[in-house]
Amino acid sequence: MASGSPERQLPVTARTRHRRLREQGSLDRDRLDAIPDAGFVCHLGVTVDGDLLVVPTVYGTDGSTLYFHGSVASRSLVASPTATVCVTVTHVDGLVLARSVFEHGVNYRSAMIFGTPRPVTDPDEKLAGLRCPTEQATPGQWDYARRPDRRELAATALLALRLDEASVKIRTGAPDDGDSEDTRLGLWAGVLPLRATWGELEPDPLLPAGVEAPAHLTKRVGTAAN
Amino acid sequence: MASGSPERQLPVTARTRHRRLREQGSLDRDRLDAIPDAGFVCHLGVTVDGDLLVVPTVYGTDGSTLYFHGSVASRSLVASPTATVCVTVTHVDGLVLARSVFEHGVNYRSAMIFGTPRPVTDPDEKLAGLRCPTEQATPGQWDYARRPDRRELAATALLALRLDEASVKIRTGAPDDGDSEDTRLGLWAGVLPLRATWGELEPDPLLPAGVEAPAHLTKRVGTAAN
Repeated sequence: MASGSPERQLPVTARTRHRRLREQGSLDRDRLDAIPDAGFVCHLGVTVDGDLLVVPTVYGTDGSTLYFHGSVASRSLVASPTATVCVTVTHVDGLVLARSVFEHGVNYRSAMIFGTPRPVTDPDEKLAGLRCPTEQATPGQWDYARRPDRRELAATALLALRLDEASVKIRTGAPDDGDSEDTRLGLWAGVLPLRATWGELEPDPLLPAGVEAPAHLTKRVGTAAN
Repeated sequence: MASGSPERQLPVTARTRHRRLREQGSLDRDRLDAIPDAGFVCHLGVTVDGDLLVVPTVYGTDGSTLYFHGSVASRSLVASPTATVCVTVTHVDGLVLARSVFEHGVNYRSAMIFGTPRPVTDPDEKLAGLRCPTEQATPGQWDYARRPDRRELAATALLALRLDEASVKIRTGAPDDGDSEDTRLGLWAGVLPLRATWGELEPDPLLPAGVEAPAHLTKRVGTAAN
C-alpha cells in the first residue's frame, strides 16, 4: 500500500506494528484521518472494574483529536480517563467471494486508535468539542438545533483522544485466488458490495403540521453514509 | 421494553446489569439472538500482552454459540482462549434528530457478549464451525465454493464463544423531546434512517467470460443487509 510523505506518517509502536496481512496495513496519516471522518459510531474498548467492555459510542473528530461523549453516569466514560483505551472505527464495504472458502473475506476500512482520553471540563472547550460529534453525524445540525445549556453541559461527559497512535487496515478489490488452481473449478468469484445510505426522513409523530425538514437534512436522503 | 418468557431470559451478572438508560436494555434471549443473526462483523475486545485491542472480526452463530476465526498467527485470536473477551455486534439504524442537541442520539441494536472462548481443534467440529461465518455472511456459499482442505483447516484458528452472558441494548423510534419546552422552537425533528443494502455484484476481473453468478448471490442484490 502506497505511503504518504514521511511527516504524515504515524509512529510505529508495539501496538500498531502490523504483524500480519502487511499489505492491508498502513501508518499513513491521511488514510487514518479518512476512516474516522467517514463515520460517527466507534467501538470503545475500556477496562472497567476489571471487566473489558466494548461499547458502541458516538464520536466526532477535528483532524487531530477524536471526541466522544455520554452521560456522566456512564461506567465506560468515567473509567476511560484513567485507562488506556482502544477506539476502533470500521466500515464494512463488501463480501469477498473467492473460489475457495479459505480465501473468502471482507472489504473494509478500519482504524484502531490507542491512548488515554482526557476529560474535557472547561465549558467553552466542552461546547466546541461537543460540536464535533453533532456536526460529523449531521452537518448543519449544530446551527439548527438548540445547543446544550449549562445544566446539559454538566450532565455530559466529553472525552478527547489524540489521533497520535493508531493502526489502519484496509482491504479493497477482488478475491486473491484468481491465479490459483481453484480457477479450474469454474466458479463465479467477485465482490458483493455493502452500501450504507441515508433513507427517507421520518418525522416525529408529535411534530405539528407544516414544519418542514431543513435543507441540510433533505439533501442527505439517498446519499452514501460512509 | 417487553420481556420474553422467564426460561428465555439471560442471567444478570455484574457485567450485564443495565445501569443506565434501562428502557433500552434487555436480557431477552430472543432479542439477543436476533442481533448477531443480522450481521457478520463483530468487534472483538481482548487483552494481548497487556494491550487492550478492539479488532473487527468476522463471525457466525448457530443459536447458542458464536464462532469467529482468523489466522493461527493472529495475536488477538491466539490470546482469546486464555482471556475473557467482550464481543460486540452493533447495527446502526439511524440518527435521532431532536429539537435540542442534548436529546440527539442514534437508533441502534447492540449486543455485548462476554466469556472465555474455546479453541475448536477437532477437524470435524472445526469444519462445522467454519460453516457458520460463511453461511451467515453469504447463505448458499458453503455448498458452492471449495471447502477448506486439511492444510487450510490447520492454518485457521476457530474460536467458540457461548452466547450465555450478554447485554442487549436497542433504541428505536422518534426523539424524546416531543413533549418538552423545546417544541416551541418550531424546529423539525425526527429520524434520518441508515440503510445497509447489498449492491450490484462486481465480478473478479480475472473471471473467464461466461461464468455466471449463482442465484444465491444474484438474489441478494438490492436487499437489506442487516
